[in-house]
Amino acid sequence: MNWKSEISKARDRIAGYAQVTPVMESRIPGYPIELKLEHMQHTGSFKARGAFNTLLSMDVPQAGVVAASGGNHGAAAAYAAQTLGYPAKIFVPELAGPSKIALIRQTGADLSVVSGEYANALTAAQEHEAATGAMQIHAYDAPATVAGQGTCFAEWDAQGLQADTVLVAVGGGGLIAGALAWFDGARKVVAVEPETSCALNAALQAGKPVDVSVSGIAANALGARRIGQICFDLAQGMSSVLVSDDAIADAQKALWQSHRILVEPAGAAALAALASGVYQPEPDERVAVLLCGANIAPDPFAG
Amino acid sequence: MNWKSEISKARDRIAGYAQVTPVMESRIPGYPIELKLEHMQHTGSFKARGAFNTLLSMDVPQAGVVAASGGNHGAAAAYAAQTLGYPAKIFVPELAGPSKIALIRQTGADLSVVSGEYANALTAAQEHEAATGAMQIHAYDAPATVAGQGTCFAEWDAQGLQADTVLVAVGGGGLIAGALAWFDGARKVVAVEPETSCALNAALQAGKPVDVSVSGIAANALGARRIGQICFDLAQGMSSVLVSDDAIADAQKALWQSHRILVEPAGAAALAALASGVYQPEPDERVAVLLCGANIAPDPFAG
Repeated sequence: MNWKSEISKARDRIAGYAQVTPVMESRIPGYPIELKLEHMQHTGSFKARGAFNTLLSMDVPQAGVVAASGGNHGAAAAYAAQTLGYPAKIFVPELAGPSKIALIRQTGADLSVVSGEYANALTAAQEHEAATGAMQIHAYDAPATVAGQGTCFAEWDAQGLQADTVLVAVGGGGLIAGALAWFDGARKVVAVEPETSCALNAALQAGKPVDVSVSGIAANALGARRIGQICFDLAQGMSSVLVSDDAIADAQKALWQSHRILVEPAGAAALAALASGVYQPEPDERVAVLLCGANIAPDPFAG
Repeated sequence: MNWKSEISKARDRIAGYAQVTPVMESRIPGYPIELKLEHMQHTGSFKARGAFNTLLSMDVPQAGVVAASGGNHGAAAAYAAQTLGYPAKIFVPELAGPSKIALIRQTGADLSVVSGEYANALTAAQEHEAATGAMQIHAYDAPATVAGQGTCFAEWDAQGLQADTVLVAVGGGGLIAGALAWFDGARKVVAVEPETSCALNAALQAGKPVDVSVSGIAANALGARRIGQICFDLAQGMSSVLVSDDAIADAQKALWQSHRILVEPAGAAALAALASGVYQPEPDERVAVLLCGANIAPDPFAG
């Protein structure tokens, strides 16, 4: 796979559909860092990039599209389908929570809430795909999804990204796969996962994707049971750190207090690695953090 | 007053103290507009610019600084004083509300809550100034304040602002005075006020600053009883529109739903003029909106 080329094509494809998200400097960790405010993407997470790239690069069948999601991908897939005029069927686990479920409902998608965790929603989506012929938009482990998420980093480069090192939160690995694919060694990429939902860290330790249990405050966005194969293949030898729920909550609060940025726990996880000192840059190492999601619960405008 | 020069000097002076705030495109009104996210400024509003410019351009007496404020200016003055090592005494009216009062308390400033509206806090601040020799940082009607707020628009120009027309919310008029002073006719500036707090609109109609009554959801930020003289002098012949509280609330909600931007009512007022159609651009008129404040109540991280 020529990822650079795929990501460049994806960028042209989704131009005008995805939001160009702003960048800024912050001093939250006590030293200057760059932030990309990707939580301002349509439907409140980077997921809209992969969803649009998937739908715009493939022939969508009459049965439309289907997606399984902890919430953010489902909302993005539903939004992209609605924008492009396709029917959408979304499966979410109960732990997606009322905010994300309401967000998906707003798009007009046909939504089913599945008991248990994300993996159960994925099984249900696969059954729906087999039964109806609907096209699956995988949340993270498909080339079109990864190329779409990679546009986030291509865009950041074009916005003048300076950093030597970019910290990215990891769930199933679609976003960080996009980062690794785009930067291709030109910048260091650091994977940040919650201690209680760390499919990539476990896979890197085991030498292969393995099942992990998932819990904690970011589980409805980062709680993939197993890292995607595309991510795992790209992630060999990469830097991987874990953050506590407390560190995530502190980073969430710091983003509001310093910048009036309100993100969900997953959206603050990468920053938490710096703010808590779990990742300590070298004296001359310039670092950047991607804020990836803002679908907090409760939604401030719910009801 | 050579405003362009004063604003340029202010910009150099406050560099590194004020946050460079990001810009982005939005389609909330149904057509593309530019947004400047000045609500991400330190202490959650543009007010930090004027406060830093004042403190950095004058000799601050041993008694420190004093400010009267609906909340945002007080927080900014207290933050700037704390950053630069000066004692600060802040007077706020009760209607500032618990979020803004807590925000000021966090800076370590000496805070007094005054009964009634903003004008009462201003009287108390003037008495404190006379009694102690503390330096008053006026919320809007002082050259150093206006020049500081003008840096917001100098910065926006440098960030590539394209718009023919810039919409700005008005309280006492410091921010829009900075816009009029900086753009100096090169771009059209439109004043947006709540129907229930419209000191500039009333002054333009009366031909002089006049007292108005203030109420409504944005009153704790835009509720100046009388427009500043500096603003009034710069505002002659300018375009002035009024928005309802409902339109403001709708714009607040739209900013969250479209971009996960959470602002206070005052921060959404300028956008409300476009989203509600009160200001309708010409077909070829490119418009931009400044989001000026984010100190909502309740604070999402209060307690």
